[in-house]
Amino acid sequence: MTLDSLIVQAASKKGPVVAVASAADREVLEAVSVAIAKGIASFMLFDDEKRIKDLMHTDFPHLIDSEKVSIHHAEDTINAATLSVKAVSSGSAHVLMKGNLATSIILKAVLNGEYGLKTGKILSHVAAFEVPGYNRLLFVTDAAMNIAPDLEAKAQIIRNAVAAAHACGVSEPIVAPLAAVETVNPAMVPTTDAASLVAMNRRGQILGCIVDGPLALDNAVSEKAAAQKGIIGETAGKADILLVPNIEAGNILYKSLMYFANAKVGAIIQGAKAPIVLTSRTDSAESKLYSLALAILSIK
Amino acid sequence: MTLDSLIVQAASKKGPVVAVASAADREVLEAVSVAIAKGIASFMLFDDEKRIKDLMHTDFPHLIDSEKVSIHHAEDTINAATLSVKAVSSGSAHVLMKGNLATSIILKAVLNGEYGLKTGKILSHVAAFEVPGYNRLLFVTDAAMNIAPDLEAKAQIIRNAVAAAHACGVSEPIVAPLAAVETVNPAMVPTTDAASLVAMNRRGQILGCIVDGPLALDNAVSEKAAAQKGIIGETAGKADILLVPNIEAGNILYKSLMYFANAKVGAIIQGAKAPIVLTSRTDSAESKLYSLALAILSIK
Repeated sequence: MTLDSLIVQAASKKGPVVAVASAADREVLEAVSVAIAKGIASFMLFDDEKRIKDLMHTDFPHLIDSEKVSIHHAEDTINAATLSVKAVSSGSAHVLMKGNLATSIILKAVLNGEYGLKTGKILSHVAAFEVPGYNRLLFVTDAAMNIAPDLEAKAQIIRNAVAAAHACGVSEPIVAPLAAVETVNPAMVPTTDAASLVAMNRRGQILGCIVDGPLALDNAVSEKAAAQKGIIGETAGKADILLVPNIEAGNILYKSLMYFANAKVGAIIQGAKAPIVLTSRTDSAESKLYSLALAILSIK
Repeated sequence: MTLDSLIVQAASKKGPVVAVASAADREVLEAVSVAIAKGIASFMLFDDEKRIKDLMHTDFPHLIDSEKVSIHHAEDTINAATLSVKAVSSGSAHVLMKGNLATSIILKAVLNGEYGLKTGKILSHVAAFEVPGYNRLLFVTDAAMNIAPDLEAKAQIIRNAVAAAHACGVSEPIVAPLAAVETVNPAMVPTTDAASLVAMNRRGQILGCIVDGPLALDNAVSEKAAAQKGIIGETAGKADILLVPNIEAGNILYKSLMYFANAKVGAIIQGAKAPIVLTSRTDSAESKLYSLALAILSIK
């Protein structure tokens, strides 16, 4: 499976609408423009109306009369965040996308008790990687949101990632809780948490997947490495979802895949009423498109 | 710089001797044989004399009369560990190498108060990676020894790695304490530790290097990524030594470089009276040779 295939799948969905908070930004409108060209969504753009229109006149004239775009005036970034979140909670839009505003501002609106998108579950980051040499997507979670999740949080992070994998057509993903070793070591919490997560999976507390761990990264992704360590079984070396033990390990894996392994990535926040796309300025246009596709497929 | 260049450098050293604990093993003798062919060391082999000789007769006849090899009878793995460590502490050998025995057995001998190799410093793992597309070696520490080092341990782990970088000819390595973000966040210990390590470097508590952090992996290794984040300076994106915040992050980075980025690696344990090579069965013959070269260059 490739990330491009997610775009094709997303384009077959009926009528998804994305609400963009603070859309008056060249790079954000570029992502909107590409997504519309690929036919994967319509967009509600929240920001200063004049600034959006000026940018469109200058750089995106084809968007001015596009029926795939609607412009909604917001006075500032806080207002844009509030209005875009309300568009999602009211059902007018199905995906929330961060434009040119601070992550903290949009998350504050998402977590608002009155009109926000809370479900009682924790929010977590799910990244889908296409790695050269691997014929399946590798989902990495949580590389960006939860700093040092405890066991309960890890269980929910897995559930959030499993939902994303299902949405991409991976019907029963294999989940590997990663650690530095593949044996249980009482001095290493990631190994004991992994053992508990396997038990939670077997007892029906984590559904729709097979959890197998603890595993070191090589034993999780390489059948050959798993066999060398004597780890044999239907899941060894075949992980679809890599649960990292902490945000540092996740961020390092994420960046290593991008910078050393030339991987491609799309990522979303799961756990809210709707998928959230939190792209940053350093993300490529391609990566923003993959994130949008992943979000659209993950609409509940 | 390449790992092969380390072999060339090591071959120019005068008379290094490696003591091998539990050498009666085909893969261990294969590594010994290759290292001798490259002219980088002589070897003292500790194990059951008959088993070593039988293996040599079968598979390595050229080693039988080699003046680069001496055989020293040991009754079991504990005895082999003791005798090989004593060979190093007495000055007969300059590098300790683990053969076919448990890591715990050889480390117990290393840490013995009477004849061991303790210096008062902590032991730490230093790996030198050659990553396709990178024209310098990337040293990663500590991916295998210290589980969750505190600030003091991190300072010593840096010193150990700096010594290895110096030994490889990197005269003033740039050290990046890695975190998930490049700003100081009181909720993320790796970021506050990084700030302290920078201060320790500026105050002369960590010498022979430039420490700059906190940095995320991309900002540490990519000048372009650093510039995109507005991190400008003579060190941004140019790290030689990557200090990982915990063993999980380190192990994941190590395995990611090996399995996703097709990197090559050599690794040693630093902090004892002599460099220690702790290769494992899953290491390639090439990797064992690089580790030996790194160890020989690191002889004090």
